Amino acid sequence: MADHMLQEIQEQPDVLQRILDTEWEAVLAAASVLRERDVRYVVVAARGTSDNAAVYAKYLFEVLLGMPVSPASPSVFTLYESEMKLRNALVIGISQSGESTDVLEPVRRAGNTAAGTLAITNDETSSMAQAAEFHFCLRAGEEKSVAATKTYTAQLLLLYLLALALGGAEELDEPIKRLPDQARRVLRTGWEGTARYRYADHLVVVSRGFNLATAKEAALKLMETSYVVAEGFSGADLSHGPIAMIGQDFPVVFIVPPGKVYRDIKALVEELGDRGAELVIISEDKDLASRAPAKFLIDGSGPEELSPILYVLPMQLLARELSLLKGLNPDAPRGLSKVTETW
Amino acid sequence: MADHMLQEIQEQPDVLQRILDTEWEAVLAAASVLRERDVRYVVVAARGTSDNAAVYAKYLFEVLLGMPVSPASPSVFTLYESEMKLRNALVIGISQSGESTDVLEPVRRAGNTAAGTLAITNDETSSMAQAAEFHFCLRAGEEKSVAATKTYTAQLLLLYLLALALGGAEELDEPIKRLPDQARRVLRTGWEGTARYRYADHLVVVSRGFNLATAKEAALKLMETSYVVAEGFSGADLSHGPIAMIGQDFPVVFIVPPGKVYRDIKALVEELGDRGAELVIISEDKDLASRAPAKFLIDGSGPEELSPILYVLPMQLLARELSLLKGLNPDAPRGLSKVTETW
Repeated sequence: MADHMLQEIQEQPDVLQRILDTEWEAVLAAASVLRERDVRYVVVAARGTSDNAAVYAKYLFEVLLGMPVSPASPSVFTLYESEMKLRNALVIGISQSGESTDVLEPVRRAGNTAAGTLAITNDETSSMAQAAEFHFCLRAGEEKSVAATKTYTAQLLLLYLLALALGGAEELDEPIKRLPDQARRVLRTGWEGTARYRYADHLVVVSRGFNLATAKEAALKLMETSYVVAEGFSGADLSHGPIAMIGQDFPVVFIVPPGKVYRDIKALVEELGDRGAELVIISEDKDLASRAPAKFLIDGSGPEELSPILYVLPMQLLARELSLLKGLNPDAPRGLSKVTETW
Repeated sequence: MADHMLQEIQEQPDVLQRILDTEWEAVLAAASVLRERDVRYVVVAARGTSDNAAVYAKYLFEVLLGMPVSPASPSVFTLYESEMKLRNALVIGISQSGESTDVLEPVRRAGNTAAGTLAITNDETSSMAQAAEFHFCLRAGEEKSVAATKTYTAQLLLLYLLALALGGAEELDEPIKRLPDQARRVLRTGWEGTARYRYADHLVVVSRGFNLATAKEAALKLMETSYVVAEGFSGADLSHGPIAMIGQDFPVVFIVPPGKVYRDIKALVEELGDRGAELVIISEDKDLASRAPAKFLIDGSGPEELSPILYVLPMQLLARELSLLKGLNPDAPRGLSKVTETW
C-alpha cells in the first residue's frame, strides 16, 4: 500500500474539481458582501504550509486587486497583545485544522473591528470556521500525512477564486476549469535524473512572483520529509546576498513558470549554471530544462497566476521520493504532529 | 590592518550616538506631519540586509502603534506594475545606497497617492532620498564592506525613533540614550567556543518577535561571508515543520533576549538540547547559556524592543570570524557588489 503522502498527492486533481463544483457559490456570496465594504488591505494569518499559501495570497491580492497584504505575525496578537487598526482590513485565517491557536487568535481578535473575517479550513466545525464571519472549506477529506499536500493546493485555489470574485467575476473562467485535468497530467509525468540527490544535505529553491510561494513550500516539504536543509528564495532576494554561498556543485532547484518572471529567472539559471551549480529545473521550456541534469517538464500551465497550483506538484513528489531514498518515512516526520497546538 | 567588516562593526556605537545627536529633530518633524494624516497601515520596501530591518519595522509598528505592516514585494511594482491602494499608507523605503531600483520604484510609484513617503538611506543626495517626501540619514559614513553591518543597526535605530515619535514621544528616553554605551560593552565581550564551527556547512538561527529580524540578519551575514547554508526562523515557524530536520549534532543558534518571547524560546532551547542539537546561545541568562558549548553573554540590554540593535552584534562578529576561519575574505563575498542595480 502506498504511503499517505503519495495517496494525498494523487488526490489533488479530484480535490480541485470538488472545490470548483461546490465552493464557488460560497466564494461569490462572501465576495458580494465584501465588495460593499471599504476593504483597503488584507491581513493573513497562517503557519507552516498554510503560510506559504499566504505568500501566494499576497501576490494575488496585490497584483490583481491592488490591496496591500500584511502577513500576520501571530506573536503580535498572542504574546504582545497589540490592538491593531483593522477597520479597513479583510482578515483571513488559513489553517488545515482550523485549531492552531496562533492562527485562530488573530481572526478572533479581529472580531467586529475588521471590515470582514474569513476562515479557510478543512473542517467547517473547527474553532476558526466558527469564529470567522465567512468560511471556505478545503473539501480535501481527511489529511493523514503530516506533510500537507492536498490541503495546500486547495488553499491556493480558494484564494484564487476569492481574488477572482472580489475583482468582479461572476463565472469561472476557462483556465480554472482546465486546472484539475492539468494537475492530473502533471502527476502522470515523472522526474528525470533525481536519484543523484539522495546524498544532498542542503539545497536552495528559487523562483519569483506568484511562485515564490512554490519555492517556499518546496523547501518546507524537503525539510519536513527528507531533512534536507532547504531554503526558498525569490531570485531577487538570492541576488542580494545569499548567492555568495552558491559555488561549484551546490544544488539549486529552479521553478521557472512562463509569464512576467520568466526572463529574470532564466538569466539566473544561466548565471548559476555557468558558475557550476548543480541545476534542477521545473519548467515548460524544454531548451532551458536541457541545461539541468535533473528536470521535470510541465505540459502547459495557463496563466502565471494559476501556475503555483501546478508547479508545486513535482516538488511534493520530489520531497517524498528523497524521503524514501534516504530510508525515512514521509508520513511521520521527526517531532511533528498534525496540529501544532501551542506557539 | 583590520578588514573593513571588523572596522565597520566597531564603528557602530559611534554611528548610533551620531544618529541620536543629529537625526532626532528630523524624525520629530516628520512624525508631527504624519500624525496629522490618517495613516492606518505601513508598506515597507527593502532588500537584503535592509529587508531584515523591515522585519524589525513590522514588529515595531504593529506592537507599538497597532499599524499593520505589509512588506512590499518589489516585483509587484516593477514586473506586475500593480496600482496599489495606498491612500492610508505610509510607504517607507530602506536602502543603504538609496539607488536599488526595486526599492526606489515602490517609493516613487507611491508618490502622491500614499499618506506619506519616507526614505531611509545613507546618502541624502541618493535617488530615493530625493524621491521621498521625508528622508532620514543613516549617518554611518561610507560602508566599504559588501556585508552591511553599521548601516543595519543605524536603520533599526531610525525605525525605532520613528515609532517612538509617531507614538507621541517628544524626548529621547533613557534606554535609548544608554544604547551606544551598551553596544560598546557588547563589542568588548567575546565569544566562547566558536572555533569548532569552522567545519559547519549549515545551521539555523532561531529567535522570535522583535528578534526574528536578528535571526534573519544573522543567517544572511553567515551566507554572505562564510557561505554557510543558514536559515533564520521564528521558533514558532520552526516548530511548524522545519524542526523535523534537526537531529543529533545539528547546529542551532538561539538568540534569547529577555522579554515576552523569553519563555517560549527557552523551552525550545531545552527541547532541541535534549534532542542532541549542537547549541549556540546569545543571551543575558548565564544559566541558560551554560547549556551551550558556544555562547555569547550580553550584559543587560534594556527593553525587548531595543534588543535587536545589541543582539545582532555578536552574530556580525561570528559571521566575520567564520569567514576568516574558512580562509575567505569577509569584505569580498563571491559574486556580490555593494549596490545591486537590477531586479
